[in-house]
Amino acid sequence: MSTEKSVVMMGTDVAKAMKEELIQRVEELKSEGILPHLAIVRVGERPDDLAYERGAIKRMELTGIACSVFELSENICQEEFEAEFRKVNDDPKIHGILLFRPLPKHLDEEPIKAMIHPMKDVDCMSPVNIAKVFSGDETGYAPCTPEAVMEMLDYYDIDLTGKKVTVVGRSMVVGKPLSMLMLKKHATITVCHTRTKDLAATCKEAEILVAAAGKAKMISEDMVGERAVVVDVGINVDDDGNMCGDVDYDAVVRKASYISPVPRGVGSVTSSVLAKHVVRSAEYFRSK
Amino acid sequence: MSTEKSVVMMGTDVAKAMKEELIQRVEELKSEGILPHLAIVRVGERPDDLAYERGAIKRMELTGIACSVFELSENICQEEFEAEFRKVNDDPKIHGILLFRPLPKHLDEEPIKAMIHPMKDVDCMSPVNIAKVFSGDETGYAPCTPEAVMEMLDYYDIDLTGKKVTVVGRSMVVGKPLSMLMLKKHATITVCHTRTKDLAATCKEAEILVAAAGKAKMISEDMVGERAVVVDVGINVDDDGNMCGDVDYDAVVRKASYISPVPRGVGSVTSSVLAKHVVRSAEYFRSK
Repeated sequence: MSTEKSVVMMGTDVAKAMKEELIQRVEELKSEGILPHLAIVRVGERPDDLAYERGAIKRMELTGIACSVFELSENICQEEFEAEFRKVNDDPKIHGILLFRPLPKHLDEEPIKAMIHPMKDVDCMSPVNIAKVFSGDETGYAPCTPEAVMEMLDYYDIDLTGKKVTVVGRSMVVGKPLSMLMLKKHATITVCHTRTKDLAATCKEAEILVAAAGKAKMISEDMVGERAVVVDVGINVDDDGNMCGDVDYDAVVRKASYISPVPRGVGSVTSSVLAKHVVRSAEYFRSK
Repeated sequence: MSTEKSVVMMGTDVAKAMKEELIQRVEELKSEGILPHLAIVRVGERPDDLAYERGAIKRMELTGIACSVFELSENICQEEFEAEFRKVNDDPKIHGILLFRPLPKHLDEEPIKAMIHPMKDVDCMSPVNIAKVFSGDETGYAPCTPEAVMEMLDYYDIDLTGKKVTVVGRSMVVGKPLSMLMLKKHATITVCHTRTKDLAATCKEAEILVAAAGKAKMISEDMVGERAVVVDVGINVDDDGNMCGDVDYDAVVRKASYISPVPRGVGSVTSSVLAKHVVRSAEYFRSK
């Protein structure tokens, strides 16, 4: 084992650097009379949504972006829900919309996906943005978490060209869009999942290993190549009730060249990506 | 090297089996007064388009599907082009539309992508279908070539679950959508491309190797694992002027367990997939 120390990739540092840049862009927009504005649409009061909402509101505040929360009753009917959403979508003062999902079971999100203005769709629910992520068209918005991974790798100057990357997880929230973003940066990507045979060997071969499986500490030291870059996208609770990632951090940290912790890793960057999207959207609508 | 013989995966056999099934479905539609109908929209007279068109017309004929060609002048203006396309798109007698691309440079295909009815979009140009392929939603239409690969593997009973698959090529026409279709079938997929380091080793590890790079005979015998399944999506012309694939067939055939030839391989299945999409579309509109 190498005695060289690992670099811990701190999401908090990445978020700080992003904030500095975004504040400047927000100032410029404000000098032209434009206040970037995020609308959060929440149906009901799921604790997860409320936690993310608090983080998002704080991040917008720190960056100088306005933020409105549209809270809808969890018993709202489809028709009314669509009408409320349409109002937000049509409001020219609002540049980005975050709709918490999954919706309550009686609501259908398909009409919303078709309705949402692709340039207000800052968390990638419109097929237009999904198709753009897939095809490598950077004019769209990727989901915030995979883009947070890219921001982190970029901040730590980790070049992807020709690198062997293994992504564990094939969700539409992380694994698949992240694979496409990395492919766009010329990585050779392998996507693993629950049906993968010999997961350990496939992980160990990777120069960059991304864990996005949602299983606490499943990536053990023997699954990680010497001096690999390890990015942990998992957010789990361990047996002692502490937040942990998909990576067995204490063991893997001794082997990796770069590693992102949980908490204070990728999860600390997602709301900054959201802010960045709202600013990009305000800049887009300014030019229209 | 194994002395066991390779199975040559004949696209012509796959197409024949598909035809039998489709004819039955077409008959059923006709008995209800519905004639499945493909519209081919062609701008100008590019030889590639004309060649594909001839094959498509013949395939529709063989399957009992009506086929109309809308030939537009290569000098048509954007406005007129959109108006002509809209007429075809709005015609309730037409169930599927194939638009040859790329369009002449002065024409913009973006408004067409947004306009085409997703259920008439039988070759996957609408973001709705692209997003569905990406997310693994099988209610949409994948591009014909990657789906032809899936039909071929299915015909030869090659299960993908847990298999190590390497796809060489990352285009939106083959490599990327095929990777998603295979991921949906639980393969562990690796996507390689021109920037991949050590392509040979990555190919050799694969239990199923798909060549979709567009480079004549680039997959040599030493890049193929013993008894691998080799699918060749390339269509190239070799130094002697003969059609050939991306695989050095004569050498690789001795090593592979299954191999698709060029010609008479995957390329012989694409127009059958197109026919299948038109039939599915006619069935869809019947139920509306």
